[in-house]
Amino acid sequence: MSQLVQEQAPTRDRIVTAARELFWVQGYEATSIAEIVEKAGVNSGSLYYFFKSKEALLLACLDWYLGNLWPEVIDPAFAQTSDPIARIFAVLAGYRIGLNYTACTGGCPIGNLSIEVGDHIPSAHEKIRQNFENWRLVIRGCLEDAGERLPANLDRDQLATFILTVMEGAVMQARAHGSLAPFDAAIAQLRNYVDGLLALADQAAKKS
Amino acid sequence: MSQLVQEQAPTRDRIVTAARELFWVQGYEATSIAEIVEKAGVNSGSLYYFFKSKEALLLACLDWYLGNLWPEVIDPAFAQTSDPIARIFAVLAGYRIGLNYTACTGGCPIGNLSIEVGDHIPSAHEKIRQNFENWRLVIRGCLEDAGERLPANLDRDQLATFILTVMEGAVMQARAHGSLAPFDAAIAQLRNYVDGLLALADQAAKKS
Repeated sequence: MSQLVQEQAPTRDRIVTAARELFWVQGYEATSIAEIVEKAGVNSGSLYYFFKSKEALLLACLDWYLGNLWPEVIDPAFAQTSDPIARIFAVLAGYRIGLNYTACTGGCPIGNLSIEVGDHIPSAHEKIRQNFENWRLVIRGCLEDAGERLPANLDRDQLATFILTVMEGAVMQARAHGSLAPFDAAIAQLRNYVDGLLALADQAAKKS
Repeated sequence: MSQLVQEQAPTRDRIVTAARELFWVQGYEATSIAEIVEKAGVNSGSLYYFFKSKEALLLACLDWYLGNLWPEVIDPAFAQTSDPIARIFAVLAGYRIGLNYTACTGGCPIGNLSIEVGDHIPSAHEKIRQNFENWRLVIRGCLEDAGERLPANLDRDQLATFILTVMEGAVMQARAHGSLAPFDAAIAQLRNYVDGLLALADQAAKKS
């Protein structure tokens, strides 16, 4: 990396950080380049040096989320426990902490962008899909690690999709109600489902 | 109702219909008053006669959804079956038809608005909450109608929240992937959970 590029890196990072936060808090459409420039503390020439358009900046934000799933979301949850089922619920509990911290505003940045720009910007659509798939594969890995603790005939790939579905729906409901109660209700029902699956596998093991 | 008001009703309806469709397809922020006026085939004076702002029009759209849940969503599903559990899955299948019809674009209009404007427009936030609650109470009614077919200790209010959560998350995932596959996966897992609950209640009935 040349010295010039090294010196530019912090400016580019500041721009992506500002854009991420504004897209998350107020939405992509509602955010202007002028606001991003102001929040990042750069001039608009710097922004256009790195990003030719707001869309290019959106793609950079989605790349940031892709690259930071593990340090931001997965590593802190997985550090709490080595039990693969408990790890799934630790990841979900991380979203609860985020909701609590923001008084149930903000929501999931990827979920938000999927709804706001998903149909309109094909390049963003693909990166949103990749972000969801990245997350889902982590959860599927946990379900595979659970091995015989789950029923042999359980479709683990399908259950991983279901858990992502529940997470996104639960964050949406918490935000819509301005309350953790619907999030907690949804996660409690997911826990009940998973506990039922664990009990089924346990019964089958005892019979065999 | 005066004759003047009667004559005005179709114009107001046309404006609300146009706004609903544009907010749904392209989002609230991305839709201008000029586009609504053009789509409705009215002049902007007519629009401002009925609605003092885009926000007022948004509230009228949310009132329309509140008033039309039954004829648009619930009645067609409930007409298919009198079984309360089958009715829940018929409601969910209705969303699948909508997703299929739109090639997995569009999504749930209330879910979309909850994410796009939920944090920013308090009056809309409250009507979005009411729309979700309206839907959830229909599902809770089905769960209550299922009586002893579900376990006695099941929290039916919580399960109703869970089903709304799954529906919204599943629609989001179908849209993000441009495919019905994640929707079908999520609903299959919900079906598996509900079937497990029905089996548990059945076993308990046979033992007693």
